[in-house]
Amino acid sequence: MKSLFGSPGKISGLLLRTCQCLFAASSLSVMASASGFSTSTSFCFLIAAMGLQVLWSFGLACLDIHALRLKKDLHNHIFLSLLVVGDWVTAILSLAAACSSAGVMVVFIKDTNICRSQAALSCNTFQISIALAFMAWFLLAVSSYVMFWLLATI
Amino acid sequence: MKSLFGSPGKISGLLLRTCQCLFAASSLSVMASASGFSTSTSFCFLIAAMGLQVLWSFGLACLDIHALRLKKDLHNHIFLSLLVVGDWVTAILSLAAACSSAGVMVVFIKDTNICRSQAALSCNTFQISIALAFMAWFLLAVSSYVMFWLLATI
Repeated sequence: MKSLFGSPGKISGLLLRTCQCLFAASSLSVMASASGFSTSTSFCFLIAAMGLQVLWSFGLACLDIHALRLKKDLHNHIFLSLLVVGDWVTAILSLAAACSSAGVMVVFIKDTNICRSQAALSCNTFQISIALAFMAWFLLAVSSYVMFWLLATI
Repeated sequence: MKSLFGSPGKISGLLLRTCQCLFAASSLSVMASASGFSTSTSFCFLIAAMGLQVLWSFGLACLDIHALRLKKDLHNHIFLSLLVVGDWVTAILSLAAACSSAGVMVVFIKDTNICRSQAALSCNTFQISIALAFMAWFLLAVSSYVMFWLLATI
């Protein structure tokens, strides 16, 4: 049985899940605190996707703590299959939300200059939230690859 | 050595690459033929990403034909590693382009009603192109998973 960086039930896995959860929660809270985020459906989708990622990563971080405390082994086929499906669905949703929001930001800043004309929109805050969402997605993508590799080599 | 659906150098692999190439080429040509696509940076990004996918899938389809004719085996570690990296980079770019364009479409149709007020924009054509891009991405994602699985189990 292989043990890679980020495997479930290891310190590195717990670290990875905690970082995913923190970045997703930061992205969510920054976006929710920005004025005018409800003007665009994509920003609302980003909040929903980051909310899902927070729940998923927090749940798995708790499971890692439980496994570390009781020294349980989480490398079984059914559990890894569940993790692979969950990780990939969440990662694709996070990337989709981050990219659609980035597309909207490009329209706001470059294509239409809405950001300059409408001072009520907190464009800088939107951009920070989108950058945090991309980082959260990247960390989740690392987990997804590790899980898929573990499942294939188990 | 495993032989999955869509493995390189097999009929199923050739079929998958041809479908990817066809969908990406259709998405590219539909978007390029739509009037007003250059108003949005995301639509130009979609054209670039679909162009890359056409080149990548066409090249690999040619390689599959070559391998099928000469009955060559393409299941070696270095070649599969190259395919995994290339497939994943192309798939992530395609998904990013499709999602950012979809985000812009939602702004055009739902958030601002630009599509109704500006008849010069071919909004229906944009939507067809984006749907084709999602299908092209889905087929490329299937290839990516197959390549990753083959690399992990080789």
